[in-house]
Amino acid sequence: MTDEQKDGPLSGYRVLEIGHYIAAPFCARLLADLGADIVKIEPPAGDPVRLWGKHVNGVAPWWSQHARNKRSLSLNLKHPDAMEIVKSLVRSCDAVVENFRPGQLEKWGLGDEILREAKPDIVIAHISGFGQDGPHRDRAAFGVIAEAVGGMRYLTNHRPGQTDLPPVRVGVSIGDSVAGLYAALGIVAALLKNRSPAKQAERGETIDVALADSVLSLMEGLVPDYGTFGEIRQPVGAGITTAAPSGAYPTKDGAWILVAANSDPLFIRLAGLMGSQLDGDPRFRDNRCRVSHADELDGLISNWTRSRTLAELEQALIEADIPCARVSTAQDVVDNVQFRFRNMIQPIPDPLIGEVFHTGIVPRFQKNPGRIRWTGPSVGQHTDAILEDFLGYDECKRQSLRSDGVI
Amino acid sequence: MTDEQKDGPLSGYRVLEIGHYIAAPFCARLLADLGADIVKIEPPAGDPVRLWGKHVNGVAPWWSQHARNKRSLSLNLKHPDAMEIVKSLVRSCDAVVENFRPGQLEKWGLGDEILREAKPDIVIAHISGFGQDGPHRDRAAFGVIAEAVGGMRYLTNHRPGQTDLPPVRVGVSIGDSVAGLYAALGIVAALLKNRSPAKQAERGETIDVALADSVLSLMEGLVPDYGTFGEIRQPVGAGITTAAPSGAYPTKDGAWILVAANSDPLFIRLAGLMGSQLDGDPRFRDNRCRVSHADELDGLISNWTRSRTLAELEQALIEADIPCARVSTAQDVVDNVQFRFRNMIQPIPDPLIGEVFHTGIVPRFQKNPGRIRWTGPSVGQHTDAILEDFLGYDECKRQSLRSDGVI
Repeated sequence: MTDEQKDGPLSGYRVLEIGHYIAAPFCARLLADLGADIVKIEPPAGDPVRLWGKHVNGVAPWWSQHARNKRSLSLNLKHPDAMEIVKSLVRSCDAVVENFRPGQLEKWGLGDEILREAKPDIVIAHISGFGQDGPHRDRAAFGVIAEAVGGMRYLTNHRPGQTDLPPVRVGVSIGDSVAGLYAALGIVAALLKNRSPAKQAERGETIDVALADSVLSLMEGLVPDYGTFGEIRQPVGAGITTAAPSGAYPTKDGAWILVAANSDPLFIRLAGLMGSQLDGDPRFRDNRCRVSHADELDGLISNWTRSRTLAELEQALIEADIPCARVSTAQDVVDNVQFRFRNMIQPIPDPLIGEVFHTGIVPRFQKNPGRIRWTGPSVGQHTDAILEDFLGYDECKRQSLRSDGVI
Repeated sequence: MTDEQKDGPLSGYRVLEIGHYIAAPFCARLLADLGADIVKIEPPAGDPVRLWGKHVNGVAPWWSQHARNKRSLSLNLKHPDAMEIVKSLVRSCDAVVENFRPGQLEKWGLGDEILREAKPDIVIAHISGFGQDGPHRDRAAFGVIAEAVGGMRYLTNHRPGQTDLPPVRVGVSIGDSVAGLYAALGIVAALLKNRSPAKQAERGETIDVALADSVLSLMEGLVPDYGTFGEIRQPVGAGITTAAPSGAYPTKDGAWILVAANSDPLFIRLAGLMGSQLDGDPRFRDNRCRVSHADELDGLISNWTRSRTLAELEQALIEADIPCARVSTAQDVVDNVQFRFRNMIQPIPDPLIGEVFHTGIVPRFQKNPGRIRWTGPSVGQHTDAILEDFLGYDECKRQSLRSDGVI
């Protein structure tokens, strides 16, 4: 295969994105990275993410990555003539993903039934905060809200009593991203079903992904343990409750290092590194004892780490084969030799920004890995090409749509 | 369709899980929930997760959920006779997912090439901390380590200077779960490729998912912004840096409520609820002003929330249509009417535990949603049935394998 042919396992599939912000665009980008042809419908003013954070020549570096490998079709969905264009596009697509408020597409004349009239076996994925039905369907649903509702925010905190500060955000829009991942999984599973010799009636699935559901699905034993024992799972701060020592410890140069020496052989190696102070201390004899005296143990380890730099600690711990890691900053991530080796940090030329670093493609396919074909497009960059190729609209027709404010 | 037929879009596919702990088993459970037949190979001593946390009759409620919809085949992979059994199983499977240390399967005689000899187009997904290649491939890789390496841990903290406490864990094994999700997406995409009229050579993909890569892929603008501006993204604590007010505020009854009133109309409504104290204050005139005085604003809002109970605040804020949410505990999640309506909390009979609450199936398919068919099996519960059905081993043969310590 030539490089051009190695566009990923989904090449040949086309997905219409009627999305904004994070969840649906992230879903579509995952599919784009695996080779799908994504047509992103954008309002003429552009997706707001284009300008999130600092920007260069009117585009944020994040956008370059967030919208890569997609084509942009500018379309004013509020205009009555937009509906026909969308329906025509749907005929040539395999799936649609959207993340407007539940019911918004119906208001634009683009409800599921209308899309299915255009193409009976189209796969439709809806992403929303709380889902397409239920008593909270219409509630405002920022990602942070859904993360709290799903149970993640409560756990992202220090142990009860350790601080008066509130539980923190994960720092990224984890609820949106995970919902996007679930929607991508759902779309591909539905495409697989469409390909199977199933009865016609089973084709053309509708998928309903809620951010809150997606977050809840990651909560491990939280729900089963509450149901069985009435136990309310509590945050564990920087450590874990069942084994010690494991935590984030301060370094001489103001960084943090994670150390997970929470088995007997690992602990003995750590004690060896630290010199005599832990040796033979009955408080730390076995894991049960260490867990009971975890705070004292963490205090002693912190004293030791505080007298050494991050680089010294990393070297010593890695040599002793004790699981450890610096708490990586953006700089650490970009300089990480493993990420570089695995092409997870790629310098990519962007026509507006210059060279920009993108994260690589996950999951990695051995034979047909996909590639970063281009960076986030400008608004409507592909409008003419798409309208001509898919719909056969000539320049005259497009000019008229443009002057009517449709595109 | 009858209920039995609505087993999900992946029914008819069979996946072999050679997994333990979280990432590969979670991947396989996602596929199982969507209808795939999962054969989980378990050592005779069982997957350690069976006993993680509190348990009843030798099984943790989490296990009931974590291993649901799977079949368990007990097999001692260290025994030389195990290899032939795995190869025979592979012939009847569409995919394999594993999460042992890179190279471990080769040591057991189960490297990719051996599996492909058994079935040329088998899809193989490897999950590991840092990936199947590169200088850090062999490093010990607990989930917490990979989360720190991928950049998430650094961001999960209060703003610099707010506390001396270390950055916290998300509270669940987010790196494992997200890697499991990516692997599930990769497997289904590869199955779709296998189904397409592609050249034979493109079938049978190998997928390499690293926890650290998976975490990094969620970091939004962290890498592009560092590359372009040299900017090291910082944690934002409970709020966001670009709009105010948004945060977690304390209630009279010791809980936290999230309030996101970070637009002018929302802020005016919040000011109305709080009475006169914010009205006309020039520090809070517009979003730019509010961001500059976010700490003072948060202080005033906290004073207001501290004088009211969580229930009072929720009612007032919801009536005023201001985005808000309690920071839900396990109890809040289980009692949540929206989750109940959407079948995201399901009481399920478990033969060993009694009734246990499971979280529902994500993503939700409208026509063929899949269902919770059974709870986590006992070790080797399906060994006899599988060896008889797939391999044609009669009772005599199985008895001999049993006495040899193979199964």
